[in-house]
Amino acid sequence: MDIATIIGILLGFIVITTAIVVGGGWQIFIHIPSMGITIGGMLCATLIHFSLPQFLGIFSIVKKTIITKVLSQSELIQKMVNYAAINRRDGALALEREIPKLDDVFFIKGMQMLVDGQDPEAIRDLMSLEIENLRDRHANGKKILEFMGAAAPAFGMIGTLIGLIQMLRSLDSPESIGGGMAVALITTFYGALTANLIFIPLAGKLGLYSKAETTAMEMIVEGVCAIAQGDNPTAIREKMQAFISQSRREEVKANI
Amino acid sequence: MDIATIIGILLGFIVITTAIVVGGGWQIFIHIPSMGITIGGMLCATLIHFSLPQFLGIFSIVKKTIITKVLSQSELIQKMVNYAAINRRDGALALEREIPKLDDVFFIKGMQMLVDGQDPEAIRDLMSLEIENLRDRHANGKKILEFMGAAAPAFGMIGTLIGLIQMLRSLDSPESIGGGMAVALITTFYGALTANLIFIPLAGKLGLYSKAETTAMEMIVEGVCAIAQGDNPTAIREKMQAFISQSRREEVKANI
Amino acid sequence: MDIATIIGILLGFIVITTAIVVGGGWQIFIHIPSMGITIGGMLCATLIHFSLPQFLGIFSIVKKTIITKVLSQSELIQKMVNYAAINRRDGALALEREIPKLDDVFFIKGMQMLVDGQDPEAIRDLMSLEIENLRDRHANGKKILEFMGAAAPAFGMIGTLIGLIQMLRSLDSPESIGGGMAVALITTFYGALTANLIFIPLAGKLGLYSKAETTAMEMIVEGVCAIAQGDNPTAIREKMQAFISQSRREEVKANI
Amino acid sequence: MDIATIIGILLGFIVITTAIVVGGGWQIFIHIPSMGITIGGMLCATLIHFSLPQFLGIFSIVKKTIITKVLSQSELIQKMVNYAAINRRDGALALEREIPKLDDVFFIKGMQMLVDGQDPEAIRDLMSLEIENLRDRHANGKKILEFMGAAAPAFGMIGTLIGLIQMLRSLDSPESIGGGMAVALITTFYGALTANLIFIPLAGKLGLYSKAETTAMEMIVEGVCAIAQGDNPTAIREKMQAFISQSRREEVKANI
Amino acid sequence: MDIATIIGILLGFIVITTAIVVGGGWQIFIHIPSMGITIGGMLCATLIHFSLPQFLGIFSIVKKTIITKVLSQSELIQKMVNYAAINRRDGALALEREIPKLDDVFFIKGMQMLVDGQDPEAIRDLMSLEIENLRDRHANGKKILEFMGAAAPAFGMIGTLIGLIQMLRSLDSPESIGGGMAVALITTFYGALTANLIFIPLAGKLGLYSKAETTAMEMIVEGVCAIAQGDNPTAIREKMQAFISQSRREEVKANI
Repeated sequence: MDIATIIGILLGFIVITTAIVVGGGWQIFIHIPSMGITIGGMLCATLIHFSLPQFLGIFSIVKKTIITKVLSQSELIQKMVNYAAINRRDGALALEREIPKLDDVFFIKGMQMLVDGQDPEAIRDLMSLEIENLRDRHANGKKILEFMGAAAPAFGMIGTLIGLIQMLRSLDSPESIGGGMAVALITTFYGALTANLIFIPLAGKLGLYSKAETTAMEMIVEGVCAIAQGDNPTAIREKMQAFISQSRREEVKANI
Repeated sequence: MDIATIIGILLGFIVITTAIVVGGGWQIFIHIPSMGITIGGMLCATLIHFSLPQFLGIFSIVKKTIITKVLSQSELIQKMVNYAAINRRDGALALEREIPKLDDVFFIKGMQMLVDGQDPEAIRDLMSLEIENLRDRHANGKKILEFMGAAAPAFGMIGTLIGLIQMLRSLDSPESIGGGMAVALITTFYGALTANLIFIPLAGKLGLYSKAETTAMEMIVEGVCAIAQGDNPTAIREKMQAFISQSRREEVKANI
Repeated sequence: MDIATIIGILLGFIVITTAIVVGGGWQIFIHIPSMGITIGGMLCATLIHFSLPQFLGIFSIVKKTIITKVLSQSELIQKMVNYAAINRRDGALALEREIPKLDDVFFIKGMQMLVDGQDPEAIRDLMSLEIENLRDRHANGKKILEFMGAAAPAFGMIGTLIGLIQMLRSLDSPESIGGGMAVALITTFYGALTANLIFIPLAGKLGLYSKAETTAMEMIVEGVCAIAQGDNPTAIREKMQAFISQSRREEVKANI
Repeated sequence: MDIATIIGILLGFIVITTAIVVGGGWQIFIHIPSMGITIGGMLCATLIHFSLPQFLGIFSIVKKTIITKVLSQSELIQKMVNYAAINRRDGALALEREIPKLDDVFFIKGMQMLVDGQDPEAIRDLMSLEIENLRDRHANGKKILEFMGAAAPAFGMIGTLIGLIQMLRSLDSPESIGGGMAVALITTFYGALTANLIFIPLAGKLGLYSKAETTAMEMIVEGVCAIAQGDNPTAIREKMQAFISQSRREEVKANI
Repeated sequence: MDIATIIGILLGFIVITTAIVVGGGWQIFIHIPSMGITIGGMLCATLIHFSLPQFLGIFSIVKKTIITKVLSQSELIQKMVNYAAINRRDGALALEREIPKLDDVFFIKGMQMLVDGQDPEAIRDLMSLEIENLRDRHANGKKILEFMGAAAPAFGMIGTLIGLIQMLRSLDSPESIGGGMAVALITTFYGALTANLIFIPLAGKLGLYSKAETTAMEMIVEGVCAIAQGDNPTAIREKMQAFISQSRREEVKANI
């Protein structure tokens, strides 16, 4: 999930930087006050629109999107089939030894409830609620990034207006027009670049990632509840393969 | 709810003002006739679109959004659990002593009906209707702010057109172009700034605030009705915790 | 309903006119050929989009929106409660004396059917159909005004393009640029002004007015049918107060 | 239906042409290469988006929209009432003499099935399917016109970009700027004019016409099926008047 | 399906190229660094938004859209009627000889399951899932192309901003303005051309193609299941003709 995002951002900045350096005069493109207006104004508008906790949460959501590795679906099915076989042969308590091998917090929680002998319905209720909460957090993160993608070009234009008015006011020497105009356009450039290379595509990626992660979580819920009901490995495989496309289904066997 | 809004607006104006003062010639950015066209035109269009009471109501709605403190959800659950315990131990009349300690009008009204021994269904009907009315008022306020956010840049552009036409008409001396153009652009600047720093983010905040406040009110209705039915404190806690996310749920005990 | 619309339009034109007169050269803003292109082109596009009767109907709908006074809801409830009392005391025929005191055509029609002793269901069917037709006419009027609000700036831009091309063609004397450009921009100004000060807000107002008028009509239907069923004044008051917000409900008593 | 469309397009072109001729230099507005880029590019994009049969069908749909006269609803009701009376008096076969007097293909087909003594349900199924197909064809035509209305200004802008780049490349003599710029803007003018005066309003008209024609067809289906069931003229009049607004209903009697 | 797409793209490029060559100075329109910014930036943003497999899959989807020939609907019905007759006369196994004559993978799979004597319900479940997966892949491809159509003009504008700023920075010699400006506008030209001539219309075509192909697949599923149930050729013809419009239905007879 993360490699495309990182490559895209890096490559995008390399493309733009090369174009700037080759064209000459890259110094003019680094202008701290222009950054202040565009990024500062955009952050202030975001702060007014959203609440403080939502605003601060966006960074951790984006970081998680890039870093977290969503569990592979076939791996997940293989694990569930194995656990079902262990459960049938040695009972639910024997699954306790498998928990330390997992590193997904949600999966561990589900397995723990399974080992504790909780009711399948209780497991499903509790875990579904957690999926719903995650989906809400992700949807919120997407809305914040989309708002940022709309606010950045707006404040870029506001910065350019300020620069234009200041330049036009003192239009004594025609040779100073160019320089003033160049500086005025920098904020529009910052706004357009951050919106189109970062905020808008990242909001899209967050939507895709949210779907991938919640699907994996729903598969875990389905699998854990089936094991809790005592389903046999084959039935569990069938049930979980309903989540994946025909062409990627394969004959999975318990391998313990 | 309010602190982010205030910080955002203040910080936003500081960022913009700094950019203006540093760039020089801040006097040109304070131009009363330009304010008249942009803000005046926008207010007139809003007056045509909406009715007079709706138009006047927007200020009180925004003020309330910034000032009102939405009841904390965990505090609310704690209170309800306490009231349920009092109700079970000493009867509904004993709750009368608790009412003066509350400062939320809606909560007081619900408690009063409870003390008066009204039917749970009657309480729910009356209070739900009030929530519905508040939601309508908020949705309306959001629509007005969104319309203002669209009208302000439009009248900014109309002002710039007027300024441009006036400047171009008397294009005798090339050195007067700059000044005229600078003044003409001020209205576009006002329109873009008020829309993007105030109206559009404030409309978004109103939407979030409306959701938070009506959720708190629905929790009060749920709690008061449960007490009226004579539910025990534990059942009430379970019922009310359905409103909040898994991670923020905690073991609340009656504490009276 | 109407006073805000009239104040808004008048004030809006005063604001814009003042800005024009103060800036100097108001003569240039009155340019008949530019009005011809912007308003004429917009009207032609509207004629192509809609049918002739719909196009001609828009003026009467707007006039009615501004002039018609929607019946006050509390007055309406008071009247219905009185009529119910008269109906119970003296029979439906005694209501005939009340009809000449009404001036709302729809209300008169409903009362007449009531006096004629028609079936409640027949009254409801006939009157609901009329409400549906009115709602359709209003929705159509709103669509026409919204289309005008989109077409006016488009034809303003087309006019400016024509003016620009004509000016650029004969770019011999630099001093004539300003005048030609000023005239070219007048159509854009007309398009932006009529759209943002008249068509778009008026379309919004028509939507609000439509909702207010059809709600009043639905209250009349509800009340007349309840009287036809012989409901008592108190039951009628309860039924009709469901239409209005909690805070505006009051103890209405028959007053005959 | 058609007269408003033709008046609108003619009047629109007269308004624009007058503005061009009065302003002087109309020759510059007729520029075949610019037409080639704007209209040619737009047609190519439309060809890529839609399939060849859909693309070719749009012309016949538009022609039909302008030429076809939708049956008047009151005339239709009168005819159906007459046919019902004939059917009751002389039997379905007597209706055969009425068919040659009709000129609507759909109406003739329905009457023929009636005379052939087909089952009401079979008639309804077959004719409803034909209405559905027509509605689909119309919706498709509307989508094509809307796409053209979006593509024409886009290719107008592309043409202007080409012209600007070519003019700027050889910016030796300042006096040649004006002419080159004027020619470059012609494509934007063509794109804006064709989109706003032809494609967008025509797409709207197609939507209205589609609704009017399919309503008339539904009335024919309802009437023919009712006659096939042997309903009496009064019942048929009642059934068909449900399609038209209260105010336009009138006492229709069989007139044979 | 494919011929219109290819003609449209070729003709579109011929129109634009002719306009460029006739206007003179075509060399300036081929500018590798400008292509790098516009196309490179757009591809990077697409890479950030979507995942790597989705991004790489778009090329094969577009290629398939242009090359694949969707089965003709009447041919499909004819084949199904023949197979039904063979099935009734000689049993399902006799259909095995027909399979090598087919070249649609999906059709072959369905026929194979039919010959294998699988349950109609099992066939429908498995094949419907495959249709659903294809529809998802197509919807995804459409979303990617639409995103590219929005990102290309955005990065075109970013490129123009970079060029403008670099040109304005060194505004010493007025005669160099033209050339710098011309180069700066090339990226906007690339962005507008690729979006309007390729990405946006291709996204539309993908939507139409997706509908055509999935309809053909649904017809295959319907037909194969009907044969598996042992329906007679006439019943199968009736069932499958429900998919096509009235006017294109014809009397199909088994022809074996």
